[in-house]
Amino acid sequence: MNRSIAPDGSEYFLPNSQETVAEDKKIEEITIAERQKGRKIVTVQGLGFVGCVMAAVVANAETETGEPIYFVHGHQRDSKRSYWKIPVINSGKSPVNSSDPKIPVLFEKCVKEKKTFRATWSEKVYEEADIVVVDIQLDAIKPAFGEAEKGYCDLYAFREGMKTLGRHIKPECLILVETTVPPGTCEQVVKPIIEEEYKKRGINIQSNPPLIAHSYERVMPGENYVASIRDFWRVYSGVNQKSKELAREFLSQVINVKKYPLTELENTNSSEMAKVMENSYRATNIALTLEWARFAEKIGVDIFKVREAIRKRKGTHDNLLRPSLGVGGYCLTKDPVLANWALKEIFQINDSLNVAINSVNINDTMPLHTIDLIKEKYENLKDVKVAVLGVSYLQNLGDTRHSPSKILIKNLKEYWAEVKVHDPYVKSWPEMEDIDIEEKIEDAVAEAEVVVFAVGHDEYKQLEPKELIEKCSCTPLIIDCSNFISDAKIIEYLNLGCQVKGVGKGHIDNLTK
Amino acid sequence: MNRSIAPDGSEYFLPNSQETVAEDKKIEEITIAERQKGRKIVTVQGLGFVGCVMAAVVANAETETGEPIYFVHGHQRDSKRSYWKIPVINSGKSPVNSSDPKIPVLFEKCVKEKKTFRATWSEKVYEEADIVVVDIQLDAIKPAFGEAEKGYCDLYAFREGMKTLGRHIKPECLILVETTVPPGTCEQVVKPIIEEEYKKRGINIQSNPPLIAHSYERVMPGENYVASIRDFWRVYSGVNQKSKELAREFLSQVINVKKYPLTELENTNSSEMAKVMENSYRATNIALTLEWARFAEKIGVDIFKVREAIRKRKGTHDNLLRPSLGVGGYCLTKDPVLANWALKEIFQINDSLNVAINSVNINDTMPLHTIDLIKEKYENLKDVKVAVLGVSYLQNLGDTRHSPSKILIKNLKEYWAEVKVHDPYVKSWPEMEDIDIEEKIEDAVAEAEVVVFAVGHDEYKQLEPKELIEKCSCTPLIIDCSNFISDAKIIEYLNLGCQVKGVGKGHIDNLTK
Repeated sequence: MNRSIAPDGSEYFLPNSQETVAEDKKIEEITIAERQKGRKIVTVQGLGFVGCVMAAVVANAETETGEPIYFVHGHQRDSKRSYWKIPVINSGKSPVNSSDPKIPVLFEKCVKEKKTFRATWSEKVYEEADIVVVDIQLDAIKPAFGEAEKGYCDLYAFREGMKTLGRHIKPECLILVETTVPPGTCEQVVKPIIEEEYKKRGINIQSNPPLIAHSYERVMPGENYVASIRDFWRVYSGVNQKSKELAREFLSQVINVKKYPLTELENTNSSEMAKVMENSYRATNIALTLEWARFAEKIGVDIFKVREAIRKRKGTHDNLLRPSLGVGGYCLTKDPVLANWALKEIFQINDSLNVAINSVNINDTMPLHTIDLIKEKYENLKDVKVAVLGVSYLQNLGDTRHSPSKILIKNLKEYWAEVKVHDPYVKSWPEMEDIDIEEKIEDAVAEAEVVVFAVGHDEYKQLEPKELIEKCSCTPLIIDCSNFISDAKIIEYLNLGCQVKGVGKGHIDNLTK
Repeated sequence: MNRSIAPDGSEYFLPNSQETVAEDKKIEEITIAERQKGRKIVTVQGLGFVGCVMAAVVANAETETGEPIYFVHGHQRDSKRSYWKIPVINSGKSPVNSSDPKIPVLFEKCVKEKKTFRATWSEKVYEEADIVVVDIQLDAIKPAFGEAEKGYCDLYAFREGMKTLGRHIKPECLILVETTVPPGTCEQVVKPIIEEEYKKRGINIQSNPPLIAHSYERVMPGENYVASIRDFWRVYSGVNQKSKELAREFLSQVINVKKYPLTELENTNSSEMAKVMENSYRATNIALTLEWARFAEKIGVDIFKVREAIRKRKGTHDNLLRPSLGVGGYCLTKDPVLANWALKEIFQINDSLNVAINSVNINDTMPLHTIDLIKEKYENLKDVKVAVLGVSYLQNLGDTRHSPSKILIKNLKEYWAEVKVHDPYVKSWPEMEDIDIEEKIEDAVAEAEVVVFAVGHDEYKQLEPKELIEKCSCTPLIIDCSNFISDAKIIEYLNLGCQVKGVGKGHIDNLTK
């Protein structure tokens, strides 16, 4: 079964060795031709959520007279899991689904019109690159639920990626690491690997010290996906002066630096730390809210109205986040772990990032609080029919990575509850393959004794109480995980005979008084 | 010794019973006369940092045609500690020192010109009040250093204050609590006390339910002291509809609500929670920074430059605070404790506000990290001469309440270090009476082996390295507690032969490379 299946079901045969030989030759021809046009060659390593859009943004960078500055090779290994991205991109389409209307336009433009972006599995693309942008995914592994202090970073694939670069790139090529890495990675991991590979190739590392820079992305999938790469603040640094200069030059061409001037830091440790610290800050912000939500529930307070009151203090308090089912996504759940691991393992420091790590633990286990709310009515969850509305980690988006709904559903099932699931944005759920996602809300809620509003998709927020209850065969317990249901609607649900509970919503009992 | 001594040394005899009888009569006459002018009577209970300025702001509230709306009695008990405030205010001066130039103007205007503010010790001022604004100080007591979870709130004085109100006020009088109180206080503490006193006086609490509202201040002593009361967001609620209405009416007259519209919350629990939660948010924000500062110190990173890079993300990250010697002042050090205590003791909930409480512990013990930095050079601190520059809790301000310098100095002395202290804004330090504050920097640093830049007073930030070292008999270790010394100046210090260390400043060793 040497086929790779795209999310839409299309199948692509993996290339054979003959095709690879032909591809290598093609790459060589393209590269020479593009260089003759005066374009610099950029190779993006890894075509995931960040890499593929970054590649398209670079491919669309233009001089003031509208000439493309770069030709971009996107490199992706020919694995069953990911090979399909290559033909999809080369057909002018984006491999990521997004609500940002700029995404399809961007791919169409650089792949089909300008012909400045091409994806491939051939490692030949590293040989002639002037710049390699590293967007390899790097995960934190948390072996025990709620014990992020035991989390670690498996650098194996990342190291292999760096070895590939070290074996192929020209000594003048800049390696620009965009991946969120544990602090210390550029200096202590990338640099020694590249030096070793250079030595093997007989390159003098005194006269040709590796050129390595770090500049982290701040991508937000969603409506402003492209803008979150191109029109946003960038921080960078390099392992030496030349690396910093090359990184600055490149980013200045690609990013909207007129509006978002670059920030240079002294060393890559600083730049790497900035990224994981900013996400740790965010994770801590959220963790605080859960304990206050629990307090609010007990004393007749609506924490969301309190939050709005606090957020009136512009500049100091207006970014206070909200309690919810939990925290998902790719950054806040892992970045504090990467940092804490680096502190202990890369730098051998006898200390801990306790505030950040405790926050990850609180956030990871936050979905259990929603189960506590259900248990206030159903002490024994066995055979209780629960409908979960929403399994992605963000509203109006189909991204299920580290979704808190996963923790909710897994734990409900451990209590032998009968769970049905709906999400208008998620067709398949790779992290939870044994779960069927109902296409229609009615199929999820028909027999439900509990309906959990888990994610703030507009479709759920707009749902009228009458409309929902008509789909149900009884009057279910309604659980609002993050202020998705207005007070007026809560009153309607109560009048329809439902019980309503919500994370941080202690005021519900007073609503009909 | 029945005298009360003002901070400037002036002495005032406490009033005798004859004077009190005369004062009572005077109060009665003034009140009648002021009411005849169509003014409402407001009594402010407690003339501390908030009360005295709030009283002056209320006394300066005017109708659109420039007529004073309120006559304000400021009430302060005739204790040795505080009686002096009464004659000082009545002479048209502010009892608080402030860098805000509006403060003296405000007091002069309402006391001398408009004659709408008068301070007194007579409890008679409660009898005719239409509104009592409660600004009694309420402390959290933390019996063990670094164990804020054992902290509690001693409500004795507050309860006594409420009893006084219950004995005197008219049933139509609104009690507006401005004091930061543990959530639940208005409903569970104030209301029962007032009801009990009303019953004793034969007032029917069914037809005359107590009118109690809560609206917390967000005072920032400093240059915008007055604006932080008048031109700022206000949140309020009341124990019943009438209380909310009266509070809204009053605040609308006194606060600049055109620019800063009021936020009404559902109940006083919500309003009380909003205040302590917003300060807990701030405390947590700071606590996070310390562990990253320690990390930065070990890996060649300047955490302050990283912080600036992170703060570029406007709206989501621009309020990240800075690591420092520690956290002082009146709010962030106690409000999480008030909340945690209320949860356990007022509401008997089996839970904890762990994130907030841990943050207080981290912040309270933060000064010990500065001692660790000193110990990197002086393992044994016995007889080491340390000069501490700055003992207030904020830059360019003389407020020493809960100053982290106190913890620093106490601990240095426990290690038998010889400590000298300087602060241009602090003449006397009530919390540390055994410490002499040198008037001139040279007297503090003359023999110092360690100079700690503890507070960011402009005078210290502007100090030239040469200038400082000329005052010293050796080249001391310089400790920068919160980025008060620029890199250029650090290099100068290094060139002068000093060693320099700083909280979160891991980059110093690289500066001369």
